[in-house]
Amino acid sequence: MGVKALDYESLNENVKEVQYAVRGELYLRASELQKEGKKIIFTNVGNPHALGQKPLTFPRQVIALCQAPFLLDDPNVGQLFPADAIARARHYLSLTPGGLGAYSDSRGLPGIRKEVAEFIERRDGYSSDPELIFLTDGASKGVMQILNCIIRGQGDGVLVPVPQYPLYSATISLYGGSLVPYYLEESANWGLDVNNLRESVAQARFNGITVRAMVIINPGNPTGQCLSEANLREVLNFCHRENLVLLGDEVYQQNIYQDERPFISSRKVLMDMGQPISKEVQLVSFHTVSKGYWGECGQRGGYFEMTNIPPKTVDEIYKISSISLSPNVPAQIFMGLMVNPPKAGDISYEQYVRESKGILESLRRRARMMTDGFNSCKNVVCNFTEGAMYSFPQIRLPPKAIEASKNAGKVPDVFYCLKLLEATGISTVPGSGFGQKEGVFHLRTTILPAEEDMPEIMSSFKKFNDEFMEQYEAVKI
Amino acid sequence: MGVKALDYESLNENVKEVQYAVRGELYLRASELQKEGKKIIFTNVGNPHALGQKPLTFPRQVIALCQAPFLLDDPNVGQLFPADAIARARHYLSLTPGGLGAYSDSRGLPGIRKEVAEFIERRDGYSSDPELIFLTDGASKGVMQILNCIIRGQGDGVLVPVPQYPLYSATISLYGGSLVPYYLEESANWGLDVNNLRESVAQARFNGITVRAMVIINPGNPTGQCLSEANLREVLNFCHRENLVLLGDEVYQQNIYQDERPFISSRKVLMDMGQPISKEVQLVSFHTVSKGYWGECGQRGGYFEMTNIPPKTVDEIYKISSISLSPNVPAQIFMGLMVNPPKAGDISYEQYVRESKGILESLRRRARMMTDGFNSCKNVVCNFTEGAMYSFPQIRLPPKAIEASKNAGKVPDVFYCLKLLEATGISTVPGSGFGQKEGVFHLRTTILPAEEDMPEIMSSFKKFNDEFMEQYEAVKI
Ligand SMILES: Cc1ncc(COP(=O)(O)O)c(C=O)c1O
Ligand SMILES: Cc1ncc(COP(=O)(O)O)c(C=O)c1O
Repeated sequence: MGVKALDYESLNENVKEVQYAVRGELYLRASELQKEGKKIIFTNVGNPHALGQKPLTFPRQVIALCQAPFLLDDPNVGQLFPADAIARARHYLSLTPGGLGAYSDSRGLPGIRKEVAEFIERRDGYSSDPELIFLTDGASKGVMQILNCIIRGQGDGVLVPVPQYPLYSATISLYGGSLVPYYLEESANWGLDVNNLRESVAQARFNGITVRAMVIINPGNPTGQCLSEANLREVLNFCHRENLVLLGDEVYQQNIYQDERPFISSRKVLMDMGQPISKEVQLVSFHTVSKGYWGECGQRGGYFEMTNIPPKTVDEIYKISSISLSPNVPAQIFMGLMVNPPKAGDISYEQYVRESKGILESLRRRARMMTDGFNSCKNVVCNFTEGAMYSFPQIRLPPKAIEASKNAGKVPDVFYCLKLLEATGISTVPGSGFGQKEGVFHLRTTILPAEEDMPEIMSSFKKFNDEFMEQYEAVKI
Repeated sequence: MGVKALDYESLNENVKEVQYAVRGELYLRASELQKEGKKIIFTNVGNPHALGQKPLTFPRQVIALCQAPFLLDDPNVGQLFPADAIARARHYLSLTPGGLGAYSDSRGLPGIRKEVAEFIERRDGYSSDPELIFLTDGASKGVMQILNCIIRGQGDGVLVPVPQYPLYSATISLYGGSLVPYYLEESANWGLDVNNLRESVAQARFNGITVRAMVIINPGNPTGQCLSEANLREVLNFCHRENLVLLGDEVYQQNIYQDERPFISSRKVLMDMGQPISKEVQLVSFHTVSKGYWGECGQRGGYFEMTNIPPKTVDEIYKISSISLSPNVPAQIFMGLMVNPPKAGDISYEQYVRESKGILESLRRRARMMTDGFNSCKNVVCNFTEGAMYSFPQIRLPPKAIEASKNAGKVPDVFYCLKLLEATGISTVPGSGFGQKEGVFHLRTTILPAEEDMPEIMSSFKKFNDEFMEQYEAVKI
């Protein structure tokens, strides 16, 4: 018998090309160790509930009622659920004839897309059209769908920040396009320098690549930077000049840990710039229920909003969405709740504010504890996490450590992270998984471990790191 | 400014090539008419809850508790939920550290994959390995993922039944492969004739196409046929000889409306065939929570099981799953509940049986009512719906009707279905959306409208059809 279609040798090469480090070697090893009974601290994925963050109460009450609508007719329902959750459940059920068990329109429920549009309008001060908002099973699926429309083949390039969240590199490989990296400036707090963009595009063109789109992640993953309005304006001008679609990954818009640069959406900046630019730059913005103080990752809810995308293209995207019928309906309702939370005066308002503020303020403290912790370690330098959920320290590996990793057949940062995992149970992602400059090493960890565990984690990290450094520096003497 | 990346002209050609009729022109027109206030009977998608089917109570109780786990600590919980639902919710929560808001492993929760494996073992009498079962956001996403791995380019062909469910044709276009049709035999109750397969493969080879995989839909959509064991054996032998991966779409395995041919899985038949075949044919089988008596379409839960797929390929598929992090967790639990429903003796057992039997028996009656109804119409012939959720009558259009449709710039069956929609509000899918032989016309409707509405629907159909036929035959005289 010859090679079969699902034998490794004969798989789609693009599939094999994909690299996906967040759940790569480190994660697999951590899972193994966990099976063997070792206590693992999973800081490899931004997965807050997995590390003990409690879900917000109100949205869970509403969803529970939507899933079990017969409870609404039960005379005892008021003993378990507040009246505003009951009212909200009735509201969402009225938007979905057939309830949560019915496929919705492939773009998502019209009533919820309307609530998202209203949220965007309140946030940005510019009206938004529900027909240009598609609900998705998490932001990831939306990003994949848009890149699938843009990428026609290897000659098509997408500008992606480096370091970047590997959703982008993986998807570009999967669809057979070319990743065009632009480097974020570690020395400038991971800022985005437009001159780097220009160089990257020039280099790509020289290599025969048509650069068609640019990705920004704001706030950044893994780098945590928040882009300033001025910076966003430069980016939009650049996209305009170079005729690039901008993909604005804004999933961390609620996760801000400093006051100098509050979140501002790419869309608002674009609209503020006025015509002709505001009517010409094609922009797709992504959001999710997985992040913020929601952290509802497992529900898989997201949306994308299209700006300046022609109707015929919107129709094509709609058609592609139809293939898989509809995004999951419960998470669509989570999205509705996220963009339309309890209001002052509602029964559940105070609890909602208390819970969400509690989470956000704790994240802010943890961001600080982690940065400080890393900076107290030998050969480790770390920018402050301005936003998002990650700390991305640079690890200055001594030459002997690099040599040792080569002997072990490992990339140096993988070598370091594996040793860290074995010694401490802390499961991180090596910086090479996100892309980094030659000879510079990082690791990424989330800032999500429980606040009370943080001191112990950081001191166990420090102990490992400082011993590691001593071990490999000692050799020199 | 030149053409932009998201202008229609410059989109990925594969995206533009995709055809997707189930939510195509007819559906869009129906949605418009609905907005204008017309009563529409949506029979275009197998979406039972949207047509009034009530969800099963027990699984919804369990999910509600899993979504709102704080209820489990409430002393009043027993007033709203039976004890077995409470116990089951605790069980599923114990399988997902972090609850429903945490990303799971990208393959799905190990505990639920184990329950699926046990279900398969009970069903088929052969053990199943949880490591070879991946949970997905509905069967659609699984099919897309597997085809993405198989299709390397235009030279790769996939055998697909015609008529077929358009997920397959659409996905093959999207990933740039070639659809190789094999025709089901309408005159043999939509049976699968292996001679047709042989011809199709020979023809494709002649055109330079490497046929790599074959799809069967059993029970069939839109055709409703149930494949016999002997037929499945022929198919597996054929796949073995021709070195094809078999994709077994078995989402309708619970939907059987006759007793001669109960559902039998491709996997069981393969195992029964013994070595070497049972160890050599690569098989991927798909299932879902959307169909059966569950009909939980909006939850988006499914799985695929891999047989004889080498570990390196499984790793690649795992890697691709990782890009979008995890399937939604609530629907994973629905899958757990579907494969592991209440047992005799459980508090909820009787209600569960009553509800599920009620749905299935009513579907069986509706299948009969529809077939009989169609066969009573002028120029309409319809095979009995042996399984699945659809009726697929052949509509013998008079030459003058075909001429009229050409003048209107429509494919004849689209023309007929649009007229039907405008006249009666019945929203169907023209047979051309599923592929059909040249010059033969069909429509597809689901058998899902409420049983009590069925007589009226069928008589309104008959009235429209018979008048239509008279109108266009009259011209001849
Ligand atoms: C930058 C970024 N974009 C997108 C996502 C995807 O989120 P989801 O698919 O859960 O919405 C993540 C998740 O970690 C992320 O970090
Ligand atoms: C034959 C067939 N396969 C797969 C699906 C997809 O189902 P889901 O993605 O909801 O699991 C359907 C839905 O109608 C179907 O008819």
